[in-house]
Amino acid sequence: MKSQKLRSIFPAIFTIFLVTFCFTAFTRADEGMWTFNNFPSKKVQEKYGFSPPQTWLDHVRNSSLRIAQGCSASFISPNGLVMTNHHCVVDCEEQLSTAQTNFVETGFSAKSAEEERKCPDLELDQLTQIVDVTAEVKAALAGKTGDAANKALRAEGAKLEQSCGTDPGVRCDVVSLYHGGIYNLYHYKRYTDVRLVFAPEFAVAQFGGDPDNFNFPRFDFDIGLLRAYENGKAIASHDYLRWSPNGSKTDELVFVSGNPGGTEREFTISQLEFLRNKSFPFLMPYLAEYRGELEEFMKQGPEQERSAHEDDFFIANSFKANYGRQAALLDPEFFSIKAQEEQKLCAAVAKDPKLADDASAWNNIAQIQQVRAKLFIRYLDLNGFIFRMGQLGDAIELVRAATERTKPNGERLPEYTDQALVTLRQRLAANIPVHKGLQELTLAYGFTNIQRDLGEGDPFVRKMLGDESPGQLAARLVSGTHLDDPKVREALYDGGEAAITASSDPLIRFAASIDPDLRAVRKQYEDEVVAPTRSNAERIANARFAVYGESAAPDATFTLRLSYGAVKGFEDAEGHFVEPYTTIGGLFGRATGAPPFALPKSWLDAKSSLNLEMPMNLSTTNDIIGGNSGSPLINSKAEIVGLIFDGNIFSLGGDFGYDAAQNRAVAVDSRALLEGLQKVYHLDRIVQEINAAR
Amino acid sequence: MKSQKLRSIFPAIFTIFLVTFCFTAFTRADEGMWTFNNFPSKKVQEKYGFSPPQTWLDHVRNSSLRIAQGCSASFISPNGLVMTNHHCVVDCEEQLSTAQTNFVETGFSAKSAEEERKCPDLELDQLTQIVDVTAEVKAALAGKTGDAANKALRAEGAKLEQSCGTDPGVRCDVVSLYHGGIYNLYHYKRYTDVRLVFAPEFAVAQFGGDPDNFNFPRFDFDIGLLRAYENGKAIASHDYLRWSPNGSKTDELVFVSGNPGGTEREFTISQLEFLRNKSFPFLMPYLAEYRGELEEFMKQGPEQERSAHEDDFFIANSFKANYGRQAALLDPEFFSIKAQEEQKLCAAVAKDPKLADDASAWNNIAQIQQVRAKLFIRYLDLNGFIFRMGQLGDAIELVRAATERTKPNGERLPEYTDQALVTLRQRLAANIPVHKGLQELTLAYGFTNIQRDLGEGDPFVRKMLGDESPGQLAARLVSGTHLDDPKVREALYDGGEAAITASSDPLIRFAASIDPDLRAVRKQYEDEVVAPTRSNAERIANARFAVYGESAAPDATFTLRLSYGAVKGFEDAEGHFVEPYTTIGGLFGRATGAPPFALPKSWLDAKSSLNLEMPMNLSTTNDIIGGNSGSPLINSKAEIVGLIFDGNIFSLGGDFGYDAAQNRAVAVDSRALLEGLQKVYHLDRIVQEINAAR
Repeated sequence: MKSQKLRSIFPAIFTIFLVTFCFTAFTRADEGMWTFNNFPSKKVQEKYGFSPPQTWLDHVRNSSLRIAQGCSASFISPNGLVMTNHHCVVDCEEQLSTAQTNFVETGFSAKSAEEERKCPDLELDQLTQIVDVTAEVKAALAGKTGDAANKALRAEGAKLEQSCGTDPGVRCDVVSLYHGGIYNLYHYKRYTDVRLVFAPEFAVAQFGGDPDNFNFPRFDFDIGLLRAYENGKAIASHDYLRWSPNGSKTDELVFVSGNPGGTEREFTISQLEFLRNKSFPFLMPYLAEYRGELEEFMKQGPEQERSAHEDDFFIANSFKANYGRQAALLDPEFFSIKAQEEQKLCAAVAKDPKLADDASAWNNIAQIQQVRAKLFIRYLDLNGFIFRMGQLGDAIELVRAATERTKPNGERLPEYTDQALVTLRQRLAANIPVHKGLQELTLAYGFTNIQRDLGEGDPFVRKMLGDESPGQLAARLVSGTHLDDPKVREALYDGGEAAITASSDPLIRFAASIDPDLRAVRKQYEDEVVAPTRSNAERIANARFAVYGESAAPDATFTLRLSYGAVKGFEDAEGHFVEPYTTIGGLFGRATGAPPFALPKSWLDAKSSLNLEMPMNLSTTNDIIGGNSGSPLINSKAEIVGLIFDGNIFSLGGDFGYDAAQNRAVAVDSRALLEGLQKVYHLDRIVQEINAAR
Repeated sequence: MKSQKLRSIFPAIFTIFLVTFCFTAFTRADEGMWTFNNFPSKKVQEKYGFSPPQTWLDHVRNSSLRIAQGCSASFISPNGLVMTNHHCVVDCEEQLSTAQTNFVETGFSAKSAEEERKCPDLELDQLTQIVDVTAEVKAALAGKTGDAANKALRAEGAKLEQSCGTDPGVRCDVVSLYHGGIYNLYHYKRYTDVRLVFAPEFAVAQFGGDPDNFNFPRFDFDIGLLRAYENGKAIASHDYLRWSPNGSKTDELVFVSGNPGGTEREFTISQLEFLRNKSFPFLMPYLAEYRGELEEFMKQGPEQERSAHEDDFFIANSFKANYGRQAALLDPEFFSIKAQEEQKLCAAVAKDPKLADDASAWNNIAQIQQVRAKLFIRYLDLNGFIFRMGQLGDAIELVRAATERTKPNGERLPEYTDQALVTLRQRLAANIPVHKGLQELTLAYGFTNIQRDLGEGDPFVRKMLGDESPGQLAARLVSGTHLDDPKVREALYDGGEAAITASSDPLIRFAASIDPDLRAVRKQYEDEVVAPTRSNAERIANARFAVYGESAAPDATFTLRLSYGAVKGFEDAEGHFVEPYTTIGGLFGRATGAPPFALPKSWLDAKSSLNLEMPMNLSTTNDIIGGNSGSPLINSKAEIVGLIFDGNIFSLGGDFGYDAAQNRAVAVDSRALLEGLQKVYHLDRIVQEINAAR
């Protein structure tokens, strides 16, 4: 649920993928992030002459992984070796770094199994089974609205999740597809002892930095290697992906198996208008100002640089992704295509007497947007951004977890069910270093925004600030708190309500004082916006099934999907054709020596030993989105030919529609990966493991 | 011309004035920022029973002043005493401050004439005459397009300005009204020896800071006093405004005489769409991120706080104003009203065979927006923002001024005509302290944005950065330059081309190397966007005159205008009625003690002596906009009843349309001004001067 909550704050928050849209109409070829139990085999067979058999699908599904914090990954050896992106392990690197060793800068390489180091809060989820629970969920919701509907959904959700048992190594999530048209129960094997094996230097992993982000041609070595452990030992992975001996070639059929974070292709026009007219104009400056504060903070010294690096990277990436999404909605041509699609569906609904009941759903959702406009800023501030205000987020989670645990499982907020608490406790107890200066920045920025957004005279603002300024309040809370200490957090978590009540920690006291207000804001929004939107979206989904069947993939939900496509170049904004492969030589050619175009010493030293003609990065037509970072790119033999890490500039509108002409996924070529691991990093132990596994 | 250039960068940049628009239709009462030679006396007579006679209009015009840097002001004594806003003199305060004395914080008060201190670069302009030059300008433009039209306009403009003579104490500007429908030559008396007399502490002048900015109820003491000097002596002002003995009352007729910076009410729908879909999404994050950098920079120490205070204030204000303007354009109801207005005019044009030639103008402007979309980011970056990159802006001005002065007056870029150079030289030679850290921040931010916006592979970016990062380039230029020294700038200016060529200053060399590129970007945009827009806007203006006459005021152009209205409250966004007056007691009630709601000691000490029932601030229906800051609010006797300093939240959409129901101007009450000057600041010398002048 964490990922869901985060998504509601920063739509497409997990993206690591400016936009000149030039849609004449969406070209639909290769569109779709398909579920493994509804893959359009026939369509793929017709276009590419290959259709993945069920054994292939099961094998790929079992070999695929989700990183619960927001990425994708895959098993690549029988010994639990896991491949993902560097930018999916950089958080772990930062957490393992100290004032003396900055792994983000130097990279990390475990010379032996003993040197593999546990990532404090990383969770891997392996999807093992999908069960349809639509009937159960719809029965529970039947005839209920508002608060009653939300309570019923929580209770049914908790019950279904609990049906998988209490083993913390098992995780079950109720997944809503087609915005309530279908409900599935996803069974996962969960791994919480995940260790860092290898990460290259940031400078080559994110070569080109923010200027090159979401661009192609590209030259990044964006890989991170992990290993799953159980009971102190590397696990045996029954399913894992083999390395392709020859890599890919232009026009070859390729698949991406991963967890796209979220799309809004099924949104109504009124919902898209809300995003365009209200959400983005609010979100973009919020991100930009925060980024400015972080950038200037990082200039104050190496410790500041190190501590804020990951936040800065995350915010810059989120900004660029959302800038592209906003640009899609601000493109009048794009918007009119979406409007035409809606008119077409509405016309079909109007003609069919069986669908007469559903015809009002669009108008209802438009009405809900009026309510939403009045509530959304307070909701975002006090139920979204506030959880990203450093340790204040932890404090609120501790306070809430204590209260929620006194309730029966089915009556709790969904992030506090027994199953969800496994992930929460791991995160709260993790030994993650805290930088007081960065904490103060984060809290002061958050309080300043709440004061600005709600106004000085607002009762909550008066309660929150009292006679202090945002900066004074932040300074007092950060200097007084002991929540930096993981033992303190763990004791507060384990001590439950009694411990929270007894605590004199200023952050805990502050969180406890405002939590009732925060809950009230959430409840009002969920009752008046979320619940009625869900019931109307469900009717639209039913209407769409009736008219078109399940011929379109459901919107992405940060669950495992399979997309198909081909290795292909594209035409850029000026009409020049961009070739689908770059080369290792091109990486050296683009290096100016100044960040973010400065190569680390390891690559400069190794240059003469490298095959400069070898493909470095490639572009494909696979339909992916943020959350797909770290997904394996595989051929029809299910062999690894690349590692997805980004999309091109035209991929950013993909949240709202797929443009086959220009939208491209971007991956590191499997050949460059092996070349680098061998010749730059001399990771013989790992290269042997990969080769032995073929 | 400077102000015009700045406006093209940050529309409504000079405003010191989130918007929930609730237009059902624009209520037009009291709309209009009227020129002094086309004031709608009849309309005012009908509604308010008073019509200002010509002597009244001449007296008020002569008493009114423009601060060339972007504000309004007025003479308030026969000895050249000038009233404006604190926020219009804060730049001067900051320039006069040192590491030891921070006038922004402590306020400034000249106990005697000798203590009045020259503001390094302030210019006051007094409008003395308006001459119609439409025929001359249109004759010069006739039949010309693109580059030829631009050259002809420059030549004619320079000729007309020169017709006023070469006295630097006289300034003549060609003003384009109705976007080219009418051209006037405005004659000004120009004062460049302007001295600071009084400014209160920032804390009370801007009480409530950013959270209260553009809000009402309000409690600000936003006044600054200056004095105009000539030949080392205070001038004798023949016209000046007297202080009202009794102030104003609810519903009373009041006028504002000032210089609204700019409005876009005559823009076509395609131009408004461009602003909504392209300009604002680009501008808002730019401002927000810059603000974030400045906020964090200011936390690093008192010297940083002091040096960046004014930039931060300016950017925060610009952000909030533009947020409101954007919100107006994103309001579908607002937009549809604008669309209906355009359709109505177009329909009238279509019916009139005499106007047949003008009918294509709207479509032509829509086509130009396509060209503009391709050019505008490069144009903003390299012809707008770059001039705000601290001393790099000075360096480019020095390089250009040297080149331009070798040309005949009529062939120069308009900011470098003989007349314009008076202002430029004063600014470049002014002794304004420079903070290296802030300079580095500003340059690095600018270079980073250019790299992001144009892309690493762009030829200009490659030339600009070479093998350096934006931060490295900024650090090298800032550490190596001697342009901090006003003597160096003055010598470079006076030395002309030879001095520039001989200079080894890294900023001068850098500016000289990129200036041809910057000029090319400007020329392309002016030829392909500005010139054709002007010729089509002129046709639309003609069509509008033909259909409606000059019954609407022209869009604001940072020239003197007169608006009429009444003291009135309004309904806020939640439907509560807001009274038109606040009180001095209310100021004390709102003070929490924490910035920006902390009162300075002077006010706390004086509290018991103050009349707490006295009106503090007031709201009126006058139609004003950014640039009106510092305008006198006067009654029908032309007596001062207040000092305009802001507008309410509903005023922000005023750029595109006037909403009489909720749009309010906000002023400091004249009674509170005198009360504060007397009882808080004991400014007996000045109070006597004001009282003696009644």
